Amino acid sequence: MAVYPAARAHAVLEIDLAAIVANWRLLAARAATAECAAVVKANAYGLGADIVAPTLAAAGCRLFFVATLDEGIALRGALGHRAEIAVLNGPLPGSEDEFPAYDLVPVLNDPGQIEAWQALAGDTGGRDAMLHIDTGMARLGLSRREVTTVIEQMPSRPVFRWRAMISHLACADTHDHPLNEVQRARFAAARGHFAGVPASLAASSGIFLGPDFHLDLVRPGAALYGVNPRPGDPNLMHQVINLKGKIIQVREIDRGESVGYGAAHVMTRPGRVAVVAVGYADGWPRSLSHRGCGHIAGQRVPLLGRVSMDLATFDVSAVDPALVRPGTEVELLGDNYGVDAAAADAGTIGYEILTALGRRYHRVYRPVSPG
Amino acid sequence: MAVYPAARAHAVLEIDLAAIVANWRLLAARAATAECAAVVKANAYGLGADIVAPTLAAAGCRLFFVATLDEGIALRGALGHRAEIAVLNGPLPGSEDEFPAYDLVPVLNDPGQIEAWQALAGDTGGRDAMLHIDTGMARLGLSRREVTTVIEQMPSRPVFRWRAMISHLACADTHDHPLNEVQRARFAAARGHFAGVPASLAASSGIFLGPDFHLDLVRPGAALYGVNPRPGDPNLMHQVINLKGKIIQVREIDRGESVGYGAAHVMTRPGRVAVVAVGYADGWPRSLSHRGCGHIAGQRVPLLGRVSMDLATFDVSAVDPALVRPGTEVELLGDNYGVDAAAADAGTIGYEILTALGRRYHRVYRPVSPG
Repeated sequence: MAVYPAARAHAVLEIDLAAIVANWRLLAARAATAECAAVVKANAYGLGADIVAPTLAAAGCRLFFVATLDEGIALRGALGHRAEIAVLNGPLPGSEDEFPAYDLVPVLNDPGQIEAWQALAGDTGGRDAMLHIDTGMARLGLSRREVTTVIEQMPSRPVFRWRAMISHLACADTHDHPLNEVQRARFAAARGHFAGVPASLAASSGIFLGPDFHLDLVRPGAALYGVNPRPGDPNLMHQVINLKGKIIQVREIDRGESVGYGAAHVMTRPGRVAVVAVGYADGWPRSLSHRGCGHIAGQRVPLLGRVSMDLATFDVSAVDPALVRPGTEVELLGDNYGVDAAAADAGTIGYEILTALGRRYHRVYRPVSPG
Repeated sequence: MAVYPAARAHAVLEIDLAAIVANWRLLAARAATAECAAVVKANAYGLGADIVAPTLAAAGCRLFFVATLDEGIALRGALGHRAEIAVLNGPLPGSEDEFPAYDLVPVLNDPGQIEAWQALAGDTGGRDAMLHIDTGMARLGLSRREVTTVIEQMPSRPVFRWRAMISHLACADTHDHPLNEVQRARFAAARGHFAGVPASLAASSGIFLGPDFHLDLVRPGAALYGVNPRPGDPNLMHQVINLKGKIIQVREIDRGESVGYGAAHVMTRPGRVAVVAVGYADGWPRSLSHRGCGHIAGQRVPLLGRVSMDLATFDVSAVDPALVRPGTEVELLGDNYGVDAAAADAGTIGYEILTALGRRYHRVYRPVSPG
């Protein structure tokens, strides 16, 4: 008798699509009159762009951002022609033709990309592109010098349309960082040269910097998926994911016995440990060794020793043994221990916890309820 | 005109199948008369079990280890019936039937799994299983107490055959760790109760602890994929992977300008930076921020600032500008900077660098040459 995939899976990841939609609506309301796009790069931060993006499109989202051409091509397949898709990295040299072929809007980041796009658009007729201006991130985008050159060299009759001009804040998650206002002012100065072009500066955290940062278009990503856009302040976003790993074995450990690789944890008193079938190969980071935790029936169980490739070990001495048996689920991410809390213990940010979520998890999508 | 996937991909991961085969042969020779299996759990440590395992089967490997039932089912599909597949985590309660259905050998880790397997084997006829005995890892496997109980309670006419008995070393990568000999001696004592059952103690590092650790069967994993099984000593294994990320943009940065998120890196002199389309969403760990590096034409280029989700920034001031253009590849992992070196900079182990290798990489397998 075959068992259901969720029954034989060693870990189950639930993704709450209704929570993602609620987060998008909350951010759209916060951004007031600005259009609210959705960033679904990196496979919707690990949660599945092919499911998340159509769900948001059905909720009214009309513009999606991905990072690469490959992501754009895959997303066009998932979305059909329901929405615009912009590709943040822009075209690699020689790949420009692929953008119109899949109805993708490139974000042009440097004079070379602009020149290649002009050549293509001149050949085949106008095609939308977005312009990325660097205002202080010093990653992608045109420098101030390059903006001036581009303005001077643009043909008097443009061969394509600027769909939007965007810039990216380097310190938006620090509300009072002086660079935020510096970047805003630089972007405002650049806007003067592009009359009528919709402008976008704010991603998740930027939306909470106030109306001066909303402009025409906002581009939330992480906050859609439950990451707190205002670190240090209460999280206004709904939690989206719930990860449970199953117990394979429960064992009694004597005092003085060591647990796991490197004999790195030594029991100071006799206890019980549960071995759970989740490890760093599932994206449960090895840096959670000795620091992470799980929850059984709401009760915290500390992670013991090092996280292995496929297994992690928890101290369940304090939990009713009737609740701790092979097959029982231990909550690894959820209401008790969210993405940001796990990230803090692992010495990283919630974004990396999400994008690392593993391929071996059995994924269950909680649908948006109809009507 | 459509471009080839490798041309439009933002990063390319080459996997050298001939190097994996050479590593397997080297380990098999080192283990002398012991059978040499291959551990291909976690999708062959991130490199693709569906390609790696058939390649090793063609080279003569007859036994493969995976972690979970799902991995076993997928691998049976890839291998056909050419080889044995053992599942290290054993059956979750209720999933026992699936093992014979896919011709999988469970590793039984506790008395509950043994009891359930006996019941199944009694119903349907004998089926092989492996026995996992804990000798000091305190993770999966029977305790000494449980071994005694199992021996006492085993029916006089066994309903299934022990295909092998295994144990796992906790400190094998530390050659002179006293626990190695303790575990070896405990395992030898347990073997006395299982006459004629093939015994296996050594994984990659254990093979280098000497002939006393080889017994009947060795189970290398990480070393197959190029990880050094003897940390601190020269690596005898062939390098298997080569990862290249493409430059999207090159920019001049003035002195005093900050680069990237959190304005975390400030340029102390004017320079040039290259933005490469690989980030932590690709498994290029965020903990490499400020510490990692790449190579262009063999020349080291330091990673600047924080690794972003889809991008990392390198200081290319010292490299001939003719070599640094959009579309140029930067070597991120390879002969100049191997998996173990990246792991050291990231504060982890090579195993985690491998298993994190991302889904967005365009993967190219270098085949084993015929004959």
